[in-house]
Amino acid sequence: MKIAAFGEIMLRLKTPEKDRFLQRPFFEATFGGAEANVAVGLSRLGLKTGFISALPLNEIGDSCVEQLRKHGLVVDSILRTGNRLGIYFLENGSNQRPSRVIYDRSGSSIAEADPGLYKWKDILADSSWFHFSGITPAISQNAADAVLSAVKAAKKLGLTVSCDFNYRSKLWKYGKTSEEVMTPLMSFVDVAIGNEEDCQKSLGISIDVDVNSGSLSVDKYKELTAKVLHKFPNLKKIAITLRESHSANHNDWSAVLNTGKEFHISKKYSITNIVDRVGAGDAFSAGLIYSIIKEKNDTDSLSFAAAASALQHTISGDLPLLSLKEVENLQAGDSSGRVQR
Amino acid sequence: MKIAAFGEIMLRLKTPEKDRFLQRPFFEATFGGAEANVAVGLSRLGLKTGFISALPLNEIGDSCVEQLRKHGLVVDSILRTGNRLGIYFLENGSNQRPSRVIYDRSGSSIAEADPGLYKWKDILADSSWFHFSGITPAISQNAADAVLSAVKAAKKLGLTVSCDFNYRSKLWKYGKTSEEVMTPLMSFVDVAIGNEEDCQKSLGISIDVDVNSGSLSVDKYKELTAKVLHKFPNLKKIAITLRESHSANHNDWSAVLNTGKEFHISKKYSITNIVDRVGAGDAFSAGLIYSIIKEKNDTDSLSFAAAASALQHTISGDLPLLSLKEVENLQAGDSSGRVQR
Amino acid sequence: MKIAAFGEIMLRLKTPEKDRFLQRPFFEATFGGAEANVAVGLSRLGLKTGFISALPLNEIGDSCVEQLRKHGLVVDSILRTGNRLGIYFLENGSNQRPSRVIYDRSGSSIAEADPGLYKWKDILADSSWFHFSGITPAISQNAADAVLSAVKAAKKLGLTVSCDFNYRSKLWKYGKTSEEVMTPLMSFVDVAIGNEEDCQKSLGISIDVDVNSGSLSVDKYKELTAKVLHKFPNLKKIAITLRESHSANHNDWSAVLNTGKEFHISKKYSITNIVDRVGAGDAFSAGLIYSIIKEKNDTDSLSFAAAASALQHTISGDLPLLSLKEVENLQAGDSSGRVQR
Amino acid sequence: MKIAAFGEIMLRLKTPEKDRFLQRPFFEATFGGAEANVAVGLSRLGLKTGFISALPLNEIGDSCVEQLRKHGLVVDSILRTGNRLGIYFLENGSNQRPSRVIYDRSGSSIAEADPGLYKWKDILADSSWFHFSGITPAISQNAADAVLSAVKAAKKLGLTVSCDFNYRSKLWKYGKTSEEVMTPLMSFVDVAIGNEEDCQKSLGISIDVDVNSGSLSVDKYKELTAKVLHKFPNLKKIAITLRESHSANHNDWSAVLNTGKEFHISKKYSITNIVDRVGAGDAFSAGLIYSIIKEKNDTDSLSFAAAASALQHTISGDLPLLSLKEVENLQAGDSSGRVQR
Amino acid sequence: MKIAAFGEIMLRLKTPEKDRFLQRPFFEATFGGAEANVAVGLSRLGLKTGFISALPLNEIGDSCVEQLRKHGLVVDSILRTGNRLGIYFLENGSNQRPSRVIYDRSGSSIAEADPGLYKWKDILADSSWFHFSGITPAISQNAADAVLSAVKAAKKLGLTVSCDFNYRSKLWKYGKTSEEVMTPLMSFVDVAIGNEEDCQKSLGISIDVDVNSGSLSVDKYKELTAKVLHKFPNLKKIAITLRESHSANHNDWSAVLNTGKEFHISKKYSITNIVDRVGAGDAFSAGLIYSIIKEKNDTDSLSFAAAASALQHTISGDLPLLSLKEVENLQAGDSSGRVQR
Amino acid sequence: MKIAAFGEIMLRLKTPEKDRFLQRPFFEATFGGAEANVAVGLSRLGLKTGFISALPLNEIGDSCVEQLRKHGLVVDSILRTGNRLGIYFLENGSNQRPSRVIYDRSGSSIAEADPGLYKWKDILADSSWFHFSGITPAISQNAADAVLSAVKAAKKLGLTVSCDFNYRSKLWKYGKTSEEVMTPLMSFVDVAIGNEEDCQKSLGISIDVDVNSGSLSVDKYKELTAKVLHKFPNLKKIAITLRESHSANHNDWSAVLNTGKEFHISKKYSITNIVDRVGAGDAFSAGLIYSIIKEKNDTDSLSFAAAASALQHTISGDLPLLSLKEVENLQAGDSSGRVQR
Repeated sequence: MKIAAFGEIMLRLKTPEKDRFLQRPFFEATFGGAEANVAVGLSRLGLKTGFISALPLNEIGDSCVEQLRKHGLVVDSILRTGNRLGIYFLENGSNQRPSRVIYDRSGSSIAEADPGLYKWKDILADSSWFHFSGITPAISQNAADAVLSAVKAAKKLGLTVSCDFNYRSKLWKYGKTSEEVMTPLMSFVDVAIGNEEDCQKSLGISIDVDVNSGSLSVDKYKELTAKVLHKFPNLKKIAITLRESHSANHNDWSAVLNTGKEFHISKKYSITNIVDRVGAGDAFSAGLIYSIIKEKNDTDSLSFAAAASALQHTISGDLPLLSLKEVENLQAGDSSGRVQR
Repeated sequence: MKIAAFGEIMLRLKTPEKDRFLQRPFFEATFGGAEANVAVGLSRLGLKTGFISALPLNEIGDSCVEQLRKHGLVVDSILRTGNRLGIYFLENGSNQRPSRVIYDRSGSSIAEADPGLYKWKDILADSSWFHFSGITPAISQNAADAVLSAVKAAKKLGLTVSCDFNYRSKLWKYGKTSEEVMTPLMSFVDVAIGNEEDCQKSLGISIDVDVNSGSLSVDKYKELTAKVLHKFPNLKKIAITLRESHSANHNDWSAVLNTGKEFHISKKYSITNIVDRVGAGDAFSAGLIYSIIKEKNDTDSLSFAAAASALQHTISGDLPLLSLKEVENLQAGDSSGRVQR
Repeated sequence: MKIAAFGEIMLRLKTPEKDRFLQRPFFEATFGGAEANVAVGLSRLGLKTGFISALPLNEIGDSCVEQLRKHGLVVDSILRTGNRLGIYFLENGSNQRPSRVIYDRSGSSIAEADPGLYKWKDILADSSWFHFSGITPAISQNAADAVLSAVKAAKKLGLTVSCDFNYRSKLWKYGKTSEEVMTPLMSFVDVAIGNEEDCQKSLGISIDVDVNSGSLSVDKYKELTAKVLHKFPNLKKIAITLRESHSANHNDWSAVLNTGKEFHISKKYSITNIVDRVGAGDAFSAGLIYSIIKEKNDTDSLSFAAAASALQHTISGDLPLLSLKEVENLQAGDSSGRVQR
Repeated sequence: MKIAAFGEIMLRLKTPEKDRFLQRPFFEATFGGAEANVAVGLSRLGLKTGFISALPLNEIGDSCVEQLRKHGLVVDSILRTGNRLGIYFLENGSNQRPSRVIYDRSGSSIAEADPGLYKWKDILADSSWFHFSGITPAISQNAADAVLSAVKAAKKLGLTVSCDFNYRSKLWKYGKTSEEVMTPLMSFVDVAIGNEEDCQKSLGISIDVDVNSGSLSVDKYKELTAKVLHKFPNLKKIAITLRESHSANHNDWSAVLNTGKEFHISKKYSITNIVDRVGAGDAFSAGLIYSIIKEKNDTDSLSFAAAASALQHTISGDLPLLSLKEVENLQAGDSSGRVQR
Repeated sequence: MKIAAFGEIMLRLKTPEKDRFLQRPFFEATFGGAEANVAVGLSRLGLKTGFISALPLNEIGDSCVEQLRKHGLVVDSILRTGNRLGIYFLENGSNQRPSRVIYDRSGSSIAEADPGLYKWKDILADSSWFHFSGITPAISQNAADAVLSAVKAAKKLGLTVSCDFNYRSKLWKYGKTSEEVMTPLMSFVDVAIGNEEDCQKSLGISIDVDVNSGSLSVDKYKELTAKVLHKFPNLKKIAITLRESHSANHNDWSAVLNTGKEFHISKKYSITNIVDRVGAGDAFSAGLIYSIIKEKNDTDSLSFAAAASALQHTISGDLPLLSLKEVENLQAGDSSGRVQR
Repeated sequence: MKIAAFGEIMLRLKTPEKDRFLQRPFFEATFGGAEANVAVGLSRLGLKTGFISALPLNEIGDSCVEQLRKHGLVVDSILRTGNRLGIYFLENGSNQRPSRVIYDRSGSSIAEADPGLYKWKDILADSSWFHFSGITPAISQNAADAVLSAVKAAKKLGLTVSCDFNYRSKLWKYGKTSEEVMTPLMSFVDVAIGNEEDCQKSLGISIDVDVNSGSLSVDKYKELTAKVLHKFPNLKKIAITLRESHSANHNDWSAVLNTGKEFHISKKYSITNIVDRVGAGDAFSAGLIYSIIKEKNDTDSLSFAAAASALQHTISGDLPLLSLKEVENLQAGDSSGRVQR
């Protein structure tokens, strides 16, 4: 495989339509997780991609592997060990009512797997890119150690390394702070992705932006990304996604990219009838990594990534069920939504 | 129980999604009714609430009781008598197509129950608040008589009495007009709630407002509420909800409160992707009653009630499946709809 | 029957909600096709209407006939012959993601049926109107021949003939162009309907309008329709529907009518939460034909047709499940979407 | 139409799969009623059949008419009057747990319709057969009067009259007994159908058979049918269906026919995995009436009717969704259930 | 409350119909657990029953409480603490394919709750009966300690104590054997329930019975129960349920009761079309406890309990959604499954 | 890949539960086809298996590939060409009502693909086994030619070749008989599989067995298989599956194997509650091929294959969603269906 992504994949249990939790006695059951979403996105865009994780050896774990394989992922390096697959419950919001996520992921196979079980030298032997997110080192010391081994091996083997900060305040319970753990990992990273909150909370770098205000200043992002690039000189590019949340249905969505030399701002997409917000950031990461591997220029890379993530707001589930052609069409400007016959 | 609500609860048969009646051979089957909705809202906000009604002694009636009990209501005073549960069929509208309600409620247990069967003195013995709506006295002479006995007993026992006008033109078929029946009942009421149409048609008090115009003048509401307060000197507060209906999906929603001394206007919520309109007014009543019992000031009471009813537009079903914390969060201003993890 | 419509009806397989194709292993299975949709619309508005087509003699064909009969259509002249019912797969778009249609209609019964099997003289004996669309002659030489026989018979019997251009670029594979086949057919047509793209591509008449621009100039439509009326002097009226597609959820919708003498422009409907786009044009045709038969004036006819088609955007499925009263209510101006109790 | 059937059709609300009432918040919503089921069966077997009833003038009534029309019935003589469609709730049993039916049919349009509204002379003008069941006269005095007018008109016009006893103990609440009302009606009947319980309770004719014993003696049926034929000399044939109920899933099913001259016994079908019991008796009636009209001999008639009703146990819903060919195949002996490709 | 039951309740995620795990992306989501099932059964039979457990303070925990309250349980003593609700995944078997259960219950709130948090003296103050099963002490040392405190308090307060052995080999992971933990608990037990495997594995008492053989000898049960009664002289009654499993669809089901003085054998129910096996044993326990509290004689108690558990095989879900009347009807011998109208 | 299978895979559109076609407007949409089913079975049992076919280059074709990949199949040699995926409609029978299959497969990509497009030498380079069925050569001359090229290449490369006769009378429409085409193909086959009807109709070898009689004589199968082995001396083993169809729910299922030297008879499985019959024969083939590759002896091979196919009767869909362990457990004799926790 060309690209390797490492992280947790969970069983996602979503209520039907806009139901409250257990309002009707059903869950829509799919799988998702930040790095798996990126990997599926890359695979569907046409790149040979592998996903590395740890899953329990039972039928739920088997089903998860089947789903990944369905989208073309290389799944040979997934450990089958431990006791359980993490779960997250999702209630889809509407208007002034926010979506709700309840995590039930402690004790998962990836949290408990001995980091020595991942043979990174072998796993990454044929790859040119390694991706992880700030979620994995937040899960447990074991998972953080596994990430560190992975990025070290990746760098030794000459891979490009990307990281989506993905700060989750409810994780980070094993006694260390995000800043403490992420800072050393960042020294291996070439491409960083995040939103304005992730950046600050994950790395302890701060500017004054109110995430919930719904009105964001682009200048602040220039400042913020410059700070990050300055702190981590190895970092070549940093992208920040900008979500202006007017309601649970209506978000505006855009992104910026700072390469140290240039600062790019994407088109802003107005998404008035969101189908499913989750995974949109991961679709952005997939779009950006794809573009860099395909050696698109920075403007094109950013606009491709923004188009991919705009589209992902229209798709139910974490996984970016997109085709290359669709993303290119939207990037080229056809956002009219006219029926394609 | 602290609060007692009396009225009809019906089996609600809704078409799936935005289907026309019987377009697909399914109904979503839940229960709802103006006073039951208020009672469930109050119970979920944390107050001990009871619901009084009459239901047939069969499995459909049993299921209805179970649903009420599920939300914590005291159901001991529900009569199990008569032949049937009223039914209402609901088709959810969209854009320029309005929602449609077909009532099939005649001959229901509550319509036919002998008013003497309700032992109000016992039922209300431990309560401090009694709530009813203008629907109940419209059902039948028996039901109207039961309401009159209830409010008399309530007043004698020192309870606060609230009434939501809830004018329904298709009821009132037993030979009396709403004005004729509601006027004497109003002399027992402390807190009144309604929309501009209810107020006028229910009590025969008129100002010139066109309900369907979609653009409402606040001054008119000051005038209208003042007229009502003047006519019923016992009345301490009157609240009017204001719906500006741009389409079946998009309503603006706000409310006013007149206490005789002061006139308050709530924030206006723009709800662009309505999930289910039914029960939003009842969530307002629950929010207002809750606030008064909790001795919030008038501004807070109105804004809490408005927030509760705004949220109810996002919930499928009549029942306000809300938590105190959610309402408080929205009242505090977080309407961005950002995912809560 | 008063009105006869001839064309293909297909099995429509739609993904649930906003799902991508086969995202969940289900299809919603209904039936639809341009002329059948018009016929069902007319029947539901109250006119005795028949549908003529060819369907295979199996249970899928039987179900299709049952569906047509359900809406009151005369189905006696449907041929039961050939091998298969055409199918179309539909994925409902959202925001910047367009809806997708995949046709699987080759080899259908109507494409292969010997045109001599339709006994037009008998079929049309009691009718006063014949309707077809530009889809039928695009299917196959057999189907095109059948249309030609039909319009000749219709004219001989004194029927009014209407045609919706409905240009489909992916059809027209049997060796002739649309212009080549449609031009002679047009000499039998009294009332033509289309959108700006249909008109031009179907008949080879061009003006410079960019369909995907989302902003349309009314003047252009005056010019375009005048050109068509000039080319076909037998044509008495031509209507053009105008879709401004802001996103897959939000379209503005209006129409124009040119009678040679006068040029009328309808009200514009803003439809922000589209349920299902497919069949909206056919509802317009049904509304227009109904109005002409009922001898409404041109302004009324256009506004009735526009109201019918605006409503059809709110209905899942191809078939216009509308009542006369609903269309009249919207035409009369009640677009507030308030609950009808 | 050749055959006219008169009776009540109800909205049938069934729980999904084997759910208890309201266990999940859904109902499967279809339509059914004894005489409508017979009429649909006859229409699907190929005979022009009409159904006469009274339905409310609302969308639920419209949907009911559409369903009947879908199966080819002539619906022109259905009155659109009154307040409601009767409803019945159904819970499908399993093993030792019986199916449960809750009727909510009082106040229905047919119960309240003025019998003078049915113009029987016109309605039956072109018919050769009239069918009713013992349910209709049990509903109300109005309905009983309508049946009496109908059978009188039918006899005057020379029609054959059939009656399925269909005794329902929970009806008959308007002050008369079944025996009292049915006895005069029986003097117009040519062909009677029932089960052993119906016969006795409906007409007050008794023999000693325990319906719940699950083991039935054929001799008793000979005796019982002979008694009925003796009491009603106008009666030409009487058929009795025999259900041996081993469990809610497993019934044995057969029938007998007494023509006064000969007594025939059908094959016994063992139905081990019942899909839906309701309507099986009506499918028998349809099969028998069809056979008599087609002038089959008595043995063939009985075996055709038994095959139709055996098949109906495998179909969800009241309506006999059967084809002539299927019934003939089973009658001819192919009960292996092998896949038909 | 009269009866108190203590144990774990889990979220039950079942595949639809007979699907394999995740074959379609849905789970039916209900709640269940051995002791909760017994408690719901007792409450539905008409006895005031409370359930004691520990649940996380989130919306999934809230929903679980609502479900218990719906069936009338007293839920005031449920602790809201800890991190998660245990989950079990269920795949419903058929024919030779067994049902599959995957437990995901480690780390649940009840497993981790400090046993000192349960104030048994207060909780049991008004009760006369305490029920637990062998599952609870198998979960964790904390849970085992809580059971021991409970039974001690129960005995001190004079309650009758019942225990269902419910041996689960995959639990018992915290370093102690079932025999070691259950033996001291048994000295507080008055009424014991189990199947032949439970008895032996739970208590280390053995006779030679092959559970999977599908053919069971009643004599062996007499011997086995006598052994248990002998070992625990405080034990007054022991019941053993006997399942002969012919296939996943077809089981024969009966039970025996040994009171030391007499040995009773119930009727055997042949259940050929099982809807859901899970919870049938718990329905038996509920039936037996109900009978003893109602002071039925031993024969009646056993036959009532057997009838309740036979019926539970026909109900989807763990919870015994039964009424007293239904159980009594089956006990009285009506197992024909005939439709109840 | 070790095993290569070639054939058609279709979109399978099944009605829900036991519905008649289009009774409710839904289809369950999965994929299946004789050879694909075998390939999926082998892959799930643990062997590296590839599937070769031709699919249209659209999203329906993409979804089909995804489904195959999900089960681990190598899909690199699937041609993406042509116009459509074949479809089959399935209605699940019950009791005396047979299941119904309607094929809509003409014009499919595999039927029309130029046989020269399959590069068999490359495709089969690493394989040791090639499997096809009698369906593929029946589709079209092109498909028959492709099979002939495949088996020639397979033999040249030293592969073992297996063929399931799978006679389908409704195919074979391109001007040749099955006997004519299959006879030369059979000279390349090492292992043949079929049922008694396939054998005879496919190869023109006859003995007197009545397929529909439901009672089969084993001796006849010895005679029949001996005849086939005699006619095709290259054939090493022939297996015949024996279905005794008591009803659509209840079949007895067994098989025989004739190796020329020995004749083996499997255990007979009584399957009383069939979930889905389709694909059971293919599961047998997968089990037999697996066993031969794993060098099991003939008795074991036959019993393993019989167990696999018995289990497949309990699984909805064509694809054998089985694990090695499950098949081995049933083969080892555990057919009690007891819950596996």
